[in-house]
Amino acid sequence: MKQIFSLFVIACLSLTITAQNPTTTTKDIADVIKKHGLENSQVMDIASYITDVLGQRLTGSTGLKNANDWAKNKLTDMGMKNSHLQQWNSFGRGWDMTHFEMHAETPTYWPIIAYPKAWSSSSKGSGEVIYLNATTIEELNKYKGKLSGKFVMIEGIREVNEAFEPTAKRHDTESLLNLANATQPVPRERRRFGGNSTAAELRAATWKLLEDEKPLAVLDRSRKGDLGTVFVSGARTAEGSARDNGKYVVPQITMAIEHYNRIFRMLEKGIPVKLSVDSQSKYTNPDGNENNVIAEIPGTDLKDEVVMFGAHYDSWHAGTGATDNGSGSAVMMEVARILIETIKETGIKPRRTLRIALWSGEEQGLHGSRNYVAQTFANTGESSRSITSLKPAQKKISGYFNMDNGTGKLRGVYLQGNQAVSPIFREWLKPFHDMGASTLSLSNTGGTDHLAFDAAGIPGFQFIQEPISYSTKTHHSNMDNFDHLIADDLKQAATIIAYFVWQTSQRDEKLPRKETNLKYN
Amino acid sequence: MKQIFSLFVIACLSLTITAQNPTTTTKDIADVIKKHGLENSQVMDIASYITDVLGQRLTGSTGLKNANDWAKNKLTDMGMKNSHLQQWNSFGRGWDMTHFEMHAETPTYWPIIAYPKAWSSSSKGSGEVIYLNATTIEELNKYKGKLSGKFVMIEGIREVNEAFEPTAKRHDTESLLNLANATQPVPRERRRFGGNSTAAELRAATWKLLEDEKPLAVLDRSRKGDLGTVFVSGARTAEGSARDNGKYVVPQITMAIEHYNRIFRMLEKGIPVKLSVDSQSKYTNPDGNENNVIAEIPGTDLKDEVVMFGAHYDSWHAGTGATDNGSGSAVMMEVARILIETIKETGIKPRRTLRIALWSGEEQGLHGSRNYVAQTFANTGESSRSITSLKPAQKKISGYFNMDNGTGKLRGVYLQGNQAVSPIFREWLKPFHDMGASTLSLSNTGGTDHLAFDAAGIPGFQFIQEPISYSTKTHHSNMDNFDHLIADDLKQAATIIAYFVWQTSQRDEKLPRKETNLKYN
Repeated sequence: MKQIFSLFVIACLSLTITAQNPTTTTKDIADVIKKHGLENSQVMDIASYITDVLGQRLTGSTGLKNANDWAKNKLTDMGMKNSHLQQWNSFGRGWDMTHFEMHAETPTYWPIIAYPKAWSSSSKGSGEVIYLNATTIEELNKYKGKLSGKFVMIEGIREVNEAFEPTAKRHDTESLLNLANATQPVPRERRRFGGNSTAAELRAATWKLLEDEKPLAVLDRSRKGDLGTVFVSGARTAEGSARDNGKYVVPQITMAIEHYNRIFRMLEKGIPVKLSVDSQSKYTNPDGNENNVIAEIPGTDLKDEVVMFGAHYDSWHAGTGATDNGSGSAVMMEVARILIETIKETGIKPRRTLRIALWSGEEQGLHGSRNYVAQTFANTGESSRSITSLKPAQKKISGYFNMDNGTGKLRGVYLQGNQAVSPIFREWLKPFHDMGASTLSLSNTGGTDHLAFDAAGIPGFQFIQEPISYSTKTHHSNMDNFDHLIADDLKQAATIIAYFVWQTSQRDEKLPRKETNLKYN
Repeated sequence: MKQIFSLFVIACLSLTITAQNPTTTTKDIADVIKKHGLENSQVMDIASYITDVLGQRLTGSTGLKNANDWAKNKLTDMGMKNSHLQQWNSFGRGWDMTHFEMHAETPTYWPIIAYPKAWSSSSKGSGEVIYLNATTIEELNKYKGKLSGKFVMIEGIREVNEAFEPTAKRHDTESLLNLANATQPVPRERRRFGGNSTAAELRAATWKLLEDEKPLAVLDRSRKGDLGTVFVSGARTAEGSARDNGKYVVPQITMAIEHYNRIFRMLEKGIPVKLSVDSQSKYTNPDGNENNVIAEIPGTDLKDEVVMFGAHYDSWHAGTGATDNGSGSAVMMEVARILIETIKETGIKPRRTLRIALWSGEEQGLHGSRNYVAQTFANTGESSRSITSLKPAQKKISGYFNMDNGTGKLRGVYLQGNQAVSPIFREWLKPFHDMGASTLSLSNTGGTDHLAFDAAGIPGFQFIQEPISYSTKTHHSNMDNFDHLIADDLKQAATIIAYFVWQTSQRDEKLPRKETNLKYN
């Protein structure tokens, strides 16, 4: 018994020593992170819940509200602290699609693949299709009094081509070399609006007429997609936002290209086409308050400093936002889980506080992340977009890592013009060279939430991802569903990001920053 | 006046001479056919009418009835003679889809992309989804009393892969060389049924149970297709045919794979899923009489002999049968038009009678063509499949040319094991080498209407076509629509087939035949 007891004590002691061994090397940490990220991955389980079960997560919808609650609880269950909803406002009303069906009734019956644009008014009825073909205000005026009770096509035929090239791609040496050789990005001039005032005037008059006439629906066929894949986003108005409370929004429907073109060709032949629709939706959440989901792993000696990692969690409504951006959201939740397991196994605690953010309102203009930055790190003018000065807390964040380019594994990092981080990230990529991630690009990548941080002088990054079918098939389409996620790619991404977050937490200095003209206030 | 008159007479005489010039060479004819087929083509107009306007053409449906009437009149308008509907029977009842919508109701709402299988009973209601997972009769029996009012999934997950390879293809030198080097085909042994009697018994018991329980619908996800493309054909029964009058057919629905898998994954998680459906259809045409469309360009010195060209005109119901086989039908109607225009321009008359056939009932087993052959060229036993002897008229048909492999242009001809036609067809392909058609293959190609002729000892051929997206995207899918037809390819096909039909008409001898054991009676 005694001998056994002694052995047990020794075993316990050695376990304790291993578990809290402060000499655990960088390589050891990478191996532990790889084990939890690659062998014990839960990223696909998380992704399936986000997409299959929670479904579409349009900002303002009941779907996103439920998804936020689930994520908040899931992060707590994983072992994160301070998991909460961080409110922001002024988004405007939300919108729930509650029923949609559309049919061609004459000359022959067929069920139509189509989706209402978000924030469209409900519509129910049947009527003929008319093509609104006006190139001048005079031509437009001829349609006055003729659109009520009709389906109004506003676009011509779009030709469909067969896929003689693959629609899914990975990077090759050439595309990666181009990224590696990118030069320092130059700030882009702001796009000027109203360059063609005649076209803008006609467009405004067209939408004014449509809002006056209240047709059964305005029909379009989106600029890409075929074979049952339909790209759908939000409805437009003549002026103001479709999210404004009380605003009338013409029912707007995006159709599968084959069905749109078929109807168009019949009209060209002079054959009347009658459709029916039953599109039911309701406006939700009139106070315009929305939420990001935030949770933390507390730091130790540098716990008042923070490393952030996140992804937008909101989606468009026709699919389930799998690659845009259930993938990024699932990966970041998995990053949190990997880090918690790594801390448990090694006993090493993060020096800085690790904070996850799942943003809302990204699809309508990075609202969630911009509002978070405006609440936390910066002072702004009228909108969260116009940063006027920095809050002291801006000094306390080391960096922000974002993912929002689909399901593809990571091939490297966009430095966002921050040359000084290059040697640091190059070192951090070393354990992942054999997994295909070794390229740094000085380039910017745009259109998502790291920009909110970058605008406040905070190092904010996105990774170089394999393109897969993101731009061709899934991004904003009805087919952005779980089946188009690739497990091995997402495991790799979560593993590498976990390591980057960890290293950012543990280094003595914060990440180097680009220069900014903004002052603290 | 006189002078003018004389000039007019001379002009008329010279026109007459040109128009009936018996010395018009083979090359001249090829050029005239090319002009009408390539420069003045109407093949896409015809195809648009067949697909866009007439729509689905399931045999027995109102759609095919209307399409038959249209084609009969169109062929008359083109200048063909004796355009008529040739009746055949014993097909069984027809089926019209009159309304279809399907939705996921809980845990979240989304509109489902799905189609009823042809001949399914109507179904309306909402209910939970259950996965019928039985590998033995004992397991199956546990579902007794549990399926009524439910949606019953009968298949597991099918994994979806991204398209890293093109989904549309053309032949290359390698694939053509393989065809060119094909050896004499050997008759295939008949497939034996009931090899696995336990599996067959389970399958029969499953469908018997489903018919007893009458669920809201049986759900499957077809064996291929993704991204909104759904492959849909006919419903099955425990025994007998779904086309039998009075037969109850369980509602059967094929869903988009992403939607099917999504539901399946929720069930795996123990999350109940509720769907709703409103699937309305009606059985038509109980007498089982169907029609082929037949029309002729009369011959001259050999007018009691015939050259036939045709394509099946019927389709499945979820698309508009564009590549299967609106393309073949439009090409054959265009062949007729090209030949009529060529005759007008050259004044040369066909020696043999040229006869077009647009078949029905192909999709359910080449019924239209087999019945035509049985009525015209052969004597049969109990069914039109079992030819017992030949009618004298069989001696009077030189050959039959068929097209039924999509939208791709012709790269050559399958000789169907008929080596003797090789030098003839090789000569006839000469004017089309620069258009990519130069390969002869001894191979058989199967599954369509030339087999009905081949079975009666009549030279029946299909052409080697570019595959394009036929097997990957359009064949039997909801996306078999006009936009997936390629104009230049169909023009080329119509031009070459017109020339083949013409040459078959004008040569002194009929086409050489393969040996047959069938006797005349």
